[in-house]
Order: sequence, then structure tokens, then C-alpha cells
Amino acid sequence: MTDKSIFDQMQEIGKTARDAAAKLALANTDKKNKALLAMAASLRKNQDKILAANAQDMKAGQDKGLASAMLDRLLLTEERIEAMARGIEAIAAFKDPIGDVMDEWSVPSGLKISRVRVPLGVIGIIYESRPNVTADAGALCLKAGNAAILRGGSESFHSSRAIHACLIEGLKAAGLPETSISLVPTTDREAVGILLRDMGAFVDVIIPRGGRSLIERVQADARVPVMGHLEGICHVYIHESADLDKAVAVTVNAKLRRPGICGAAETLLIDEAALGSHLGPILDALIEGGCEILGDAEICALDSRVKPATDDDWYTEYLDKIISVKAVSGIEDAMEHIRTYGSGHTESIITEDGAAADTFLSKVDSAIVMHNASTQFADGGEFGMGAEIGIATGKLHARGPVGAAELTSYKYQVRGDGTTRP
Amino acid sequence: MTDKSIFDQMQEIGKTARDAAAKLALANTDKKNKALLAMAASLRKNQDKILAANAQDMKAGQDKGLASAMLDRLLLTEERIEAMARGIEAIAAFKDPIGDVMDEWSVPSGLKISRVRVPLGVIGIIYESRPNVTADAGALCLKAGNAAILRGGSESFHSSRAIHACLIEGLKAAGLPETSISLVPTTDREAVGILLRDMGAFVDVIIPRGGRSLIERVQADARVPVMGHLEGICHVYIHESADLDKAVAVTVNAKLRRPGICGAAETLLIDEAALGSHLGPILDALIEGGCEILGDAEICALDSRVKPATDDDWYTEYLDKIISVKAVSGIEDAMEHIRTYGSGHTESIITEDGAAADTFLSKVDSAIVMHNASTQFADGGEFGMGAEIGIATGKLHARGPVGAAELTSYKYQVRGDGTTRP
Repeated sequence: MTDKSIFDQMQEIGKTARDAAAKLALANTDKKNKALLAMAASLRKNQDKILAANAQDMKAGQDKGLASAMLDRLLLTEERIEAMARGIEAIAAFKDPIGDVMDEWSVPSGLKISRVRVPLGVIGIIYESRPNVTADAGALCLKAGNAAILRGGSESFHSSRAIHACLIEGLKAAGLPETSISLVPTTDREAVGILLRDMGAFVDVIIPRGGRSLIERVQADARVPVMGHLEGICHVYIHESADLDKAVAVTVNAKLRRPGICGAAETLLIDEAALGSHLGPILDALIEGGCEILGDAEICALDSRVKPATDDDWYTEYLDKIISVKAVSGIEDAMEHIRTYGSGHTESIITEDGAAADTFLSKVDSAIVMHNASTQFADGGEFGMGAEIGIATGKLHARGPVGAAELTSYKYQVRGDGTTRP
Repeated sequence: MTDKSIFDQMQEIGKTARDAAAKLALANTDKKNKALLAMAASLRKNQDKILAANAQDMKAGQDKGLASAMLDRLLLTEERIEAMARGIEAIAAFKDPIGDVMDEWSVPSGLKISRVRVPLGVIGIIYESRPNVTADAGALCLKAGNAAILRGGSESFHSSRAIHACLIEGLKAAGLPETSISLVPTTDREAVGILLRDMGAFVDVIIPRGGRSLIERVQADARVPVMGHLEGICHVYIHESADLDKAVAVTVNAKLRRPGICGAAETLLIDEAALGSHLGPILDALIEGGCEILGDAEICALDSRVKPATDDDWYTEYLDKIISVKAVSGIEDAMEHIRTYGSGHTESIITEDGAAADTFLSKVDSAIVMHNASTQFADGGEFGMGAEIGIATGKLHARGPVGAAELTSYKYQVRGDGTTRP
């Protein structure tokens, strides 16, 4: 059953976002950057208000018994607010993708054709606990000339609202429509359903960022185009020719540097031929870092510190200091496991064998495939692309890190002189 | 109610297409081109069979009373079969997009990053009467390393089946899986529903090509990503500063060169200031070409040969020798009409005023915007992009002509040396 008043509120948000998008598409770079810099200033100025709102969310989260990794994602500090402000300033400093002539050519008929970057229009973003997404996503959408409709997680509702107020202040300072960035003003889950089902006239694309339950919701309900930013079941695969030091360093970094990000490794695959030499040192280092180890029967038999993994574990994004470990018979077995259980996000092979690395990089069908590198590098900033909305795990439109350029479309401008087609 | 046996057939098609796609992604250019050239040879060799199948479809179409433009779309001739064969040979001669390193750079962490083109995977294509789409779409998907599931219109069922048999012969000649290109073996509309709703595990994207009823079907039913190739409500706008000869030539060409293609103009907008000078000569030329004219009250009052248009007419893709004509107060009024009634396909302004042309080209939000050129140029071949599936009218992934390069995704290959993220 649709709550009429939420439905009406959402339609109104959609309509005003569509109107704002028409204006933003024509706003010049200076105006957009002025708004962005004013947003950053407002975040700094309103730091105390944001921290107070976050304290409300944190208390509710603790009372609800959220996991520590989840609470870490929710937490804001002075440093994290400063990082948000700097993030928006970095977006302002980055190149404006809009109006960029991507390509230009003439054809025998005499026509001159240019392919020009334009905004997508109105982007709906559905995300979970991390409140900084409110700032990052709103600012990135604006940079690319898009209006944004943001729906944050209910856990971060007060934090997101305080951050959103700063974005609005920035828009006003630059004379841009306040409705350029809307925050859905309710934690009612029905609002998500309306956004997915009933906003086709106003929303050009929905970007969901979250875990399994959001995936299932989106797959069942979406009637608008979706650019999926789904969970990261990222794998590190230790090939039999892996260098031991690199294997230990990369695995520990991929799992433990920040276990709560989508690029964190969740499963370690290890060649049977490398079990004797590599398994012990890798597990020692993980356990020393506070990581819990779940393994298949073969791994459990080799090390008494390992608890048994169930089939569900291979599908699980822990986002915590837990890793599942599986022995594989070789690279084909490893790739088959990734094909079956992976989410198409990021996978890394550790090997000194160039041919094995090439096989892995060409055959594994994920957004990011790595050789001798930590999966935690799966990040637009680390890729040199500036800020990102997240890592797209679908294959349509954008794949991998989604920055301002990935939030655009293009059109063809064709110039003739009374030219007719024979 | 879902017919169990159609459901099972479709699932089997999906599964085998997914398996074929994994092989095609790794097939080299020579192998794919060998298949394409063998397909072209097979079309020529089986010309009589194809014509016989088409005669069956044409007879059924005439019995059903299909409009003449529709029958023209359905008709195959020796020339059209030869054109199909040449089209496939042109696709073979075109550059293989797969494996193309689109971009390559290093980042301060020491990682080397490349962005490499990969196939999308399995592409479902739903189209209407034109049987040559079977050949074009199947061949283009193959060129880009994708498996295709084709669902043609029921009117062209026998023609499509005869063409499909030639594609299969080509795949076999190159040792590629026969299931690389499947044709849905039934005209039951339930098969379309299953393709849209229940094939998410197998299909990466659905490309619908067709008119309003297909649009509505897809919007209501699709649970898989869609790249829309929808109707073309294309506009020619005669600005007050239009050159008369260009205005006449472009309008006649845009409407009448081939009225049945999606780039054909359906509505003529004309500035009130140009009515006295331009309307008569344009209508004379259109009527001489056999075109029926529907107009708003102002146009009807000026010319007795014009019949009144209803509001529905502004939404109508005639695909026939009919045009709707409306007087507008100026460029803003024209752009507002296009925003309200257009389908985001192709629009052209006829003017000698460079500033007006720039305004139109930057503000009109359609895939293709033209100045002093016929909308019938909306075509991948005319754009120099080789063959095309059609003109995408959505903004996600690809917009405008969709050729082999637009039927790809990409992935990031990242190379380190035991690199960890600080």
C-alpha cells in the first residue's frame, strides 16, 4: 500500500529536480564551482551541528546493536568532516566534463559531426550507512550538471540531513536552484519503492550503493534505469608462483587496511601447491591483525585456528575483520570460484608468473582485475579520477569507479548547409 | 499465466547464450570475421529460400491489411538481401572493438592502470517488422563478442527464420557456438514477457526497437537493463531566418526520402514570422511528393489542403507520407514543443542565424540535434560508424547510433608489484 502523502512528496521532489536539472544543464563551470566551494565552507562552519546530529545517529546505532564496522562507517569526526569539505573542494578543482567535445569529424555527405558531453539529468542515489556519501554524491552530481535525489540509510538520517543543509547553503550562495540536490525527508522504506517504481517521468537513472538486501529490492522493484553499485565480494588469489612477501603484504592490506569498504577482500583463494609454503605465514599475519579465519575442509585440516566456512560464506561481504579461505586446484578452479560467487567488483592475483597474470586479467569478468596489488585500491581517487560515487558493478554505462565523467551522457551535434540524404 | 514450455525454452536459450558469450569474449578477430563472411556467403547462397519465406510473410501482412509503409519495411528483394550480405561484410571489415586499450596511465602508488574494451555479454534484441535487423543485429553483436537473443516481429517471422539459418551456417563454418545467435522460435508474445522479466541471470541488456506499444510493454515489464531504441518523433523547425530553398529541400527529404525509417520527420514546426514566405512552398513540395498534411488551427486557416491535427498527432510516429505542421512563436516555443512531444531522437533547425542554431543545438535534449540538415541522416552508416543496431533514445550507456563499439563495456586491468594501499 502506498502512503499517499509520501507518494505526493516524492512526486514533488521529482518534478522540482527535473526543473532544476534543466537549469543545471546550462549552468557554467564557474557557477557550479562557486556552489561547491560554498558547500565546503558551510560544512566547516556547521561542523558542530553535524557532529551533534551524528551523535544522535551513533547513539541510536549503538542502541540497535550495529556491528562495529557499521558504526565505523556511520561515525563522523572533525577529521572526517574536514575530509568531506576537502573532497568537495577537490571536485570543484577537477575538470568540468560538461560541454567537452569528445570527438569531432566530417563525413562525405558534407556534415560536420561532434559528440558533446551533456549531463544525464536527474540521478537518484540510494545508499546505506555512510553519511559522507550525502556530500560526495550531491557534489559530484552537481559538478556533472545533474540534479540529485538522495536517499540515505535510516541509520544516518540526522547526519545526512545536517550535511544536506550545508549543500543547500552552497547552492543558494551560487544562485542555483535549491532543488538541485534533494534529500528524501523520511526514513520510511516506502519512499525507496516510490523512487524505484514511480519516478520514471523524473529520474534518468538510479544508483544503488549497498548490500544484498538493497540489490534484491532494486531488482524486484526498479522501473527506471539502474547503474548498480552493489556489494564487493572481492577475491585475492594466491597462485602457486606467488612471491611469499607480496602474498602476505597484499592479503593483509586487502583485508585489514579498512575492512568496511567495498574494495576490502572477503575471500582468499590459495593454490593447493602453495598451501605448504604460503598458508601459514598469511594466516599468521591476518590473525595478528585481529582477523577471524573461516576455511573450507582442507584449510581447517591444516590449521586449528580456522573455523569451518559454510557455502553462504563464499557469498558474504563481511565488511569486518573476517575472511573466508579456500584451497583451489589451480587458476581455472580459482576463476570458476570467482565466476560463481563473485559480485563483479575487484579481484587480484598474486603471482610472479606473467602468463598466469595475463590469463587472470583477461578472463576474469570483473570491473577491476589486478595483478600483485591490493583490492583496496578499487577507488576513483586512487585511480586518479577524482572523487567517486562508488564502484559500478554492472556492465552498462559505467563500470568500476564512477566519477563526474561517468555521470554524463552525450549528444551528437550535426552541422550541414541544407544537406539532404541521397 | 506463463506457458511452462515457452518458459523452459527461453531459459534454455538464455543458458546456452550465456555459455556462448563466455567463448565469444575470448574469440579472436579472425574467427569472428570468418563467421561473418560465411554468413554473408550463406545469405547469397540461400537467396531463394529467403525470398520464399518473405513471400509467406508478405502475403500474411497483406491479408492482415498492414499499411504500405509497414509492408515496405517487411519486404525483401534480391537487392535488399544483397545489401544485407554487404552490410555483414562491412561489419567484418570494420575494426574489432574488443581488447582495445581505451586509455592507459600510471598513478603515484606505482600502479599501472589500463581501461580495456570487453563485450557486454548477452544482448536481447526485440524488434518489429524489418527482417534485415535479424542479420544486422546478429552480426553486430558477434563482432563485439556478444551473444545475441533475437526476437523479431511476428509479421517477419518466416523471413527472420530463413535469415537466422544463414547466420548459424556462418557460426558453424568458423567453429563458433551455434547458440551465439539465437532466434526466439515462437511468435507467442509471452516469450517477450519472459525475456523482459525472467532472464536476468542470462541477459546483460535488452535493446527494444519499436514504437509506442513496445515502449509501454518494456517499461511495465523489464527487470533487466534496457537500452532503449524507441520511436523517432523527429522535428524539423523552420526558424524565421531559414533560407527558403534549404527549408524546402530539407523538409521534403526529412519526410519523404524514406518515410518508414525512425529518422523520418513527423512534425514540422514553423515560425509565425516565416509563415507568409515559407509555408506555401514547403507544403507545395510535400503535397507534390504525395504527402498528407495535418495542421494546427493557424496552419489550417492558411491553407485549405491541410486537415486539422489532434493533440495525438504531435505524439504520433506516422512512418508514412503524413506530416503534422504547427506554427510557433519563436525558438523557445519550438523547443518547448519538442520537449513536450519529442522522443529524444533527432531534431533539426533550419536557419541562417548562427546564434539561433547554437541555442537549438545546445538546449534541445535529443540524441541528435542538427542544423540545416535532414533528420534522415540519423544513421550509424551516415555518421561513419559502420553498421548500427539503431538509434538509442535513452541517455544511459549509448545515445544516438549504436554500432559495434556501443555494444561493449570495459574493465580496468591494474598491475602492481606487491603494491599495498597506505
